[in-house]
Amino acid sequence: MNILVLNSGSSSLKYQLFDMQGETVMAKGLVEKIGLEGSELTHSPAGKDKVNIVTDIPNHSVAIELVISELLDPVHGVIRDMKEINAVGHRVVHGGQTFCKSCLIDTNVLAEIERLVELAPLHNPPTILAIRACEEKMHGVPMVAVFDTAFHQTMPAYTYLYGLPYHYYEKYQVRRYGFHGTSHRFVSARCSELLGKKDAKIITCHLGNGSSIAAINNGKVLDTSMCFTPLQGILMGTRCGDIDPAIVTFLMAKEGLDPKAMDDVMNKESGLLGISGVSPDMRYIEEAAAKGNERAAVALKVFEKTVVHYIGAYAAELNGVDAIVFTAGIGENAINARANICANLDYLGVDFDAEANNCRGQEVEITRPGSKTRIFAIPTNEELMIARDAQALVQGK
Amino acid sequence: MNILVLNSGSSSLKYQLFDMQGETVMAKGLVEKIGLEGSELTHSPAGKDKVNIVTDIPNHSVAIELVISELLDPVHGVIRDMKEINAVGHRVVHGGQTFCKSCLIDTNVLAEIERLVELAPLHNPPTILAIRACEEKMHGVPMVAVFDTAFHQTMPAYTYLYGLPYHYYEKYQVRRYGFHGTSHRFVSARCSELLGKKDAKIITCHLGNGSSIAAINNGKVLDTSMCFTPLQGILMGTRCGDIDPAIVTFLMAKEGLDPKAMDDVMNKESGLLGISGVSPDMRYIEEAAAKGNERAAVALKVFEKTVVHYIGAYAAELNGVDAIVFTAGIGENAINARANICANLDYLGVDFDAEANNCRGQEVEITRPGSKTRIFAIPTNEELMIARDAQALVQGK
Repeated sequence: MNILVLNSGSSSLKYQLFDMQGETVMAKGLVEKIGLEGSELTHSPAGKDKVNIVTDIPNHSVAIELVISELLDPVHGVIRDMKEINAVGHRVVHGGQTFCKSCLIDTNVLAEIERLVELAPLHNPPTILAIRACEEKMHGVPMVAVFDTAFHQTMPAYTYLYGLPYHYYEKYQVRRYGFHGTSHRFVSARCSELLGKKDAKIITCHLGNGSSIAAINNGKVLDTSMCFTPLQGILMGTRCGDIDPAIVTFLMAKEGLDPKAMDDVMNKESGLLGISGVSPDMRYIEEAAAKGNERAAVALKVFEKTVVHYIGAYAAELNGVDAIVFTAGIGENAINARANICANLDYLGVDFDAEANNCRGQEVEITRPGSKTRIFAIPTNEELMIARDAQALVQGK
Repeated sequence: MNILVLNSGSSSLKYQLFDMQGETVMAKGLVEKIGLEGSELTHSPAGKDKVNIVTDIPNHSVAIELVISELLDPVHGVIRDMKEINAVGHRVVHGGQTFCKSCLIDTNVLAEIERLVELAPLHNPPTILAIRACEEKMHGVPMVAVFDTAFHQTMPAYTYLYGLPYHYYEKYQVRRYGFHGTSHRFVSARCSELLGKKDAKIITCHLGNGSSIAAINNGKVLDTSMCFTPLQGILMGTRCGDIDPAIVTFLMAKEGLDPKAMDDVMNKESGLLGISGVSPDMRYIEEAAAKGNERAAVALKVFEKTVVHYIGAYAAELNGVDAIVFTAGIGENAINARANICANLDYLGVDFDAEANNCRGQEVEITRPGSKTRIFAIPTNEELMIARDAQALVQGK
């Protein structure tokens, strides 16, 4: 069974085609600048040369058509007939309170994803365009929706409710949802395997350009740091994470900003970039800090402190922790950040292994044998998780 | 030496007169509804009957005059001459980055407290009125300012900086300040005494109508939960504590609220009241929960969860904790909340003593002998701390 996994942004479309026998990637690629000048597709078929096509791509429908034609191409292609794509798995950012697991997409499901645009005005619309484009171009192929929020739907009311007037929860569903759920699910399941313990207490740290941390007990999320929108929690590339909510109104009043402009400040001008003034990318900030840039150095320390803060908070909410997992761009690769974070965790009985930690992008245990709390770096694979869900649903499992 | 301690609100004035020999309270009282209809003074002289005076009190100057006249009153009074008041200690909420300890008030200090009104528009103005009123009515008596923020000024940049564009820190001094500093200082010093350890790692939980938690290492604050304003952190009586900052802009846009109206929602309609719909007072919420009110029950659990969250976070930021202190209205009296919070702390080696915990308003250790992390309830006494600071400064120490 072959499954096409799509991850749609407002002007981008990432794809991977999986052969589920062996879970291998047959081809993957990226369509960029959809609807913008200079749109292009980069297609990487397994075992063949990468292809770059610069062409006019006015919308997601044309993008999907182009992806299919590359997959079928006699030279760069990996399949001969569109019927060899047995299902499409779509990453959907927001499933609200409706979706607590992945599901086959039908008219009702699509209508609900559309209704949830209110909660995810930036994220759900491009996915809806991609679902529609697939209906149009690949009619009849079953499609599956895999939600970033679904894994977190096990949170109990006392963790998902904010301390706001209750009627805002009733009227607008203002509550904690949680994001990166597919990644937290993937790495926590793998961690559970590595521990040989199904009912483990695990803290998963998905640290990338966007970052979130989750507290997981026996496969269920108890709490997570990125909540109503992808703004709260850890310091991120350009997002502020936790701040005093009164700062929002203070700065709006002082600077004459409307809600949209203030959202832009908090989402696009803040985080590692905001403090350092250097870059949202940790690699450049580390370089600058090494050259003596003090704001870059403090930005790194703020980031590490917020991660330590949430690891500690979740160790308490779980009343103990068996293992901590680092994943995603920073989690898998930032050797220094991992070491600095772990240096604050002696009190949890962490016996850190600096040598094992000295690697990037690999599955590795970075604590020594016998460490009371074990720590792992585990590469995430959201696309594979989406493909697995799609396969299971298409096979009626 | 006798010291008058004043704690001024916008329409209230609390006072205590201390005899510093033995640190006893000679008289205390409260002026309410200053500038409003039905203003009154309640005066409690030690060893004498309480006096209630309902009279027109148009401003803080008249209030101070009335307090002095009661202190000197032949029947309800406790001194014979105003000269027996050797100093006045004022509680000042916001000392910004300027004041890292208490100081004698002179023209420059007063000007700086006035400048800081920008950061504490609700809290500093009534104190300024009280300082001016004392100058007018008690000319020549030395006055001391004791700042809620001062104790927290030891926080390093990586804990006090928010993940916002750095120029907001430079332009408006948007950063973490911390509040209830006098209380955290008082109970952490007492805890250190009880531990017989000066360089202890202590987490102090000041839980009252307003709540904040502080991480203290060797007498210095490393981090605290109530930050730029008294809104952030723990769920409070009517304040929301931590929320996704994007909720602020979301609700403002949806409901057409301006910054002031949104501040009112977050400060006055949220917290325990907002979730429960019952009351901001934990005692009424516990009653409602016991009768089966589900929103009251969940409000209590949210409160306990946020306290557990911060205790855990600070245990990690400190890399271990010797002792945890509960203080203030809820911290000293809420037996159930303390028990529920401690029930999540087995992983820190907490050996909870339910019997010892079964008391209110007393200094008590609520862990058993040998508990790896020790937990205390310690009644706070901000007024005494202010009096001590005033005495030391007046004596030139």
